[in-house]
Amino acid sequence: MDKSSSPTGLTHLDASGDARMVDVSAKPVSSRRAVAQGYISLNPAVIAAIENDQVAKGNVFAVARTAGILAAKQTSSLIPMCHPLLIENVAIHIALNDERTGAIIEAEVTVQAKTGVEMEALTAVSVTALTIYDMCKALDKGMRISDIHLVSKEK
Amino acid sequence: MDKSSSPTGLTHLDASGDARMVDVSAKPVSSRRAVAQGYISLNPAVIAAIENDQVAKGNVFAVARTAGILAAKQTSSLIPMCHPLLIENVAIHIALNDERTGAIIEAEVTVQAKTGVEMEALTAVSVTALTIYDMCKALDKGMRISDIHLVSKEK
Amino acid sequence: MDKSSSPTGLTHLDASGDARMVDVSAKPVSSRRAVAQGYISLNPAVIAAIENDQVAKGNVFAVARTAGILAAKQTSSLIPMCHPLLIENVAIHIALNDERTGAIIEAEVTVQAKTGVEMEALTAVSVTALTIYDMCKALDKGMRISDIHLVSKEK
Amino acid sequence: MDKSSSPTGLTHLDASGDARMVDVSAKPVSSRRAVAQGYISLNPAVIAAIENDQVAKGNVFAVARTAGILAAKQTSSLIPMCHPLLIENVAIHIALNDERTGAIIEAEVTVQAKTGVEMEALTAVSVTALTIYDMCKALDKGMRISDIHLVSKEK
Amino acid sequence: MDKSSSPTGLTHLDASGDARMVDVSAKPVSSRRAVAQGYISLNPAVIAAIENDQVAKGNVFAVARTAGILAAKQTSSLIPMCHPLLIENVAIHIALNDERTGAIIEAEVTVQAKTGVEMEALTAVSVTALTIYDMCKALDKGMRISDIHLVSKEK
Amino acid sequence: MDKSSSPTGLTHLDASGDARMVDVSAKPVSSRRAVAQGYISLNPAVIAAIENDQVAKGNVFAVARTAGILAAKQTSSLIPMCHPLLIENVAIHIALNDERTGAIIEAEVTVQAKTGVEMEALTAVSVTALTIYDMCKALDKGMRISDIHLVSKEK
Repeated sequence: MDKSSSPTGLTHLDASGDARMVDVSAKPVSSRRAVAQGYISLNPAVIAAIENDQVAKGNVFAVARTAGILAAKQTSSLIPMCHPLLIENVAIHIALNDERTGAIIEAEVTVQAKTGVEMEALTAVSVTALTIYDMCKALDKGMRISDIHLVSKEK
Repeated sequence: MDKSSSPTGLTHLDASGDARMVDVSAKPVSSRRAVAQGYISLNPAVIAAIENDQVAKGNVFAVARTAGILAAKQTSSLIPMCHPLLIENVAIHIALNDERTGAIIEAEVTVQAKTGVEMEALTAVSVTALTIYDMCKALDKGMRISDIHLVSKEK
Repeated sequence: MDKSSSPTGLTHLDASGDARMVDVSAKPVSSRRAVAQGYISLNPAVIAAIENDQVAKGNVFAVARTAGILAAKQTSSLIPMCHPLLIENVAIHIALNDERTGAIIEAEVTVQAKTGVEMEALTAVSVTALTIYDMCKALDKGMRISDIHLVSKEK
Repeated sequence: MDKSSSPTGLTHLDASGDARMVDVSAKPVSSRRAVAQGYISLNPAVIAAIENDQVAKGNVFAVARTAGILAAKQTSSLIPMCHPLLIENVAIHIALNDERTGAIIEAEVTVQAKTGVEMEALTAVSVTALTIYDMCKALDKGMRISDIHLVSKEK
Repeated sequence: MDKSSSPTGLTHLDASGDARMVDVSAKPVSSRRAVAQGYISLNPAVIAAIENDQVAKGNVFAVARTAGILAAKQTSSLIPMCHPLLIENVAIHIALNDERTGAIIEAEVTVQAKTGVEMEALTAVSVTALTIYDMCKALDKGMRISDIHLVSKEK
Repeated sequence: MDKSSSPTGLTHLDASGDARMVDVSAKPVSSRRAVAQGYISLNPAVIAAIENDQVAKGNVFAVARTAGILAAKQTSSLIPMCHPLLIENVAIHIALNDERTGAIIEAEVTVQAKTGVEMEALTAVSVTALTIYDMCKALDKGMRISDIHLVSKEK
């Protein structure tokens, strides 16, 4: 099989343009950490429901965090070219923004591996946001999930 | 068990604030359709790689569409309070925007069920975007996924 | 293929003793509901940690309930001869017992289907208990999960 | 979205050549049944091990049947354009062929649905054969899985 | 992000009470082994069916063992805060107890990892028991699964 | 537990004939690579549709390759006695054969592990073939998947 890279520079495509996983077998194992963030808008009715009811707040965010952590571990089943990895830590923080117009979601993922964990962190943020959307959609028909991006990546 | 709704109006929480699935057993089955959209920014190097190489374009977007369709079918495994549904159609379209600064992703999901498919459409958009991110991240370190929202919902 | 039942009365075995799913194609669809319960022992250190810290209590039990609800939807992937079903409701309640020696877990599952949901309710109880075990095992090395049984089954 | 079929006649491709699920929403629900078969070659050492040891035979084939039944239920997660279906029966039979050169695997799947179950039956046969391969590969390095085909399809 | 532990001593909760995975990145890899047990009651009709029919016994227990082994490998998808691990061995033994009132299930799991495998062993026992329940429930409406506990844990 | 091998030589069965995973904990980690092949017959109508429509060809094969890569990563969930592995590369090539009667599918899998990846390569080939079958079955009712075998295995 042809292992040369695509002339396009897209490392997931081989020289004939076919998608493939990137071969990481020759890369060294190192400690890696990625942090990603995203945002979901929430209308005043949702914000009030969350703030006036501490138990509810705990539960909506607790369910969303749980979903995000589980999703981080499923990344290589969801994103076709991602490598399976032995994630060593996932932490997800959710907080209302200062303007009180929505929630900021941050996910941090740590691993010892041959490849990074930015997709795991981005997937955790995305599924956490989708779960908040699902749990609040009876009160807000206009939520938007935005600004999902990588904050930092270290090894 | 207490089946009354939470006073907060959040239908996923019962009267004691515990999360639960919404009981849809008394609702009628009807035809339902949801369309969701989202956007991923792409830098000129990625746009050029995609446009100058039709095979590559086909493949990046084909892999992303495939991932999005599979994810739509996994929605109830990813989003804790979502009901399992027998999805009858998922279609995903991806196109560069007019300003050539990124790609617009649209997912349409159809079902005959007691509950709607907006979460399935939003999940399909999210995982399609994440897959594009994964396949292009060697060329663009600054991609952002944004504006994930429901376009329409009918029954 | 031989569709006659096993002379043993075990409906999951055909006449030659081979395991199979039970063919439910000729059965009518009806509303079905099952409730299952189980128990996990917790030592005083765990009980105190849970009771003195309402947020923590919310979170341990919220994570466990979320895991149980997700597991109920995975029953047919875990138990080989179970039929896939479109579960319409799962609710899980967790409470310390009167003697304060542990927690009682109750799961209720509702469906319109050709077959019952006792396995879904029992699976939800089991995974909820395993999640509590996992989250408390730093404080209690002697937990036992017991008395997992069907409380009621209706159609 | 464009719902017209591809001019190629491949119903999984829309008019622009993009892959999609086939929209079955307008089709009626009917009883459907599919039977598929396949074959795996086994060398005399494997045949002897299976025949001289009834418990072993029971177990190798029992594990393979269990894997095949579970896989039938996972078809829509494995084959991207397959619809999720509520399978009502899966039965898998495995028997040595008359020439004693291998095993014939037959899977039958039954459903009430808008679309057929041939992919479920073919997937069950494939995973049953792969499991036999896995369990016997210490004794036979030359096994081949072949002749996987649809035997009948009814509605 | 705050990595300090919860003052409650529950290592799955951070200082603010939010659930998280325990960060194992600084722990050394070592050989680890866990053994768990559980029990399922079986009435005389089930015991007789199993004992009078060796093939059936082989199959009920073979299916249950297969389900338990597969479940051990799914532990980190089922229990939200569990780490994914490369399990190196799972063995499950099932035997009728001396009093002939039920079956004892024992699971042993081995791994080289930074964290132990007690949850994998307990999950294997639980799903094995649930599978026996499912396969025998036509003959016994009163089965109970009990006494699921950790027998030993070594590294 | 009894760790001795079965007298039959089938390493997946222990001395009592019960199925188990093979304990690989004492084996060294080494670089491993496996290549598997398979074949699917395609009638002239399918061949013509694929060849006259480059986009369609790209997409059918792109979807099938994506499915095969995802399936390789799911091998230990599908084949009960397979060990979970951190696959480092999967590449799948599909080409029409010289006689233009079908397509040859080749999968290559690479890993650093204690056990080989032939099952991952064979699973990737099988699911790639099943996906081609699914996408072309509207045009060809007589496809057969055959000759799935291991081409090479190195460490």
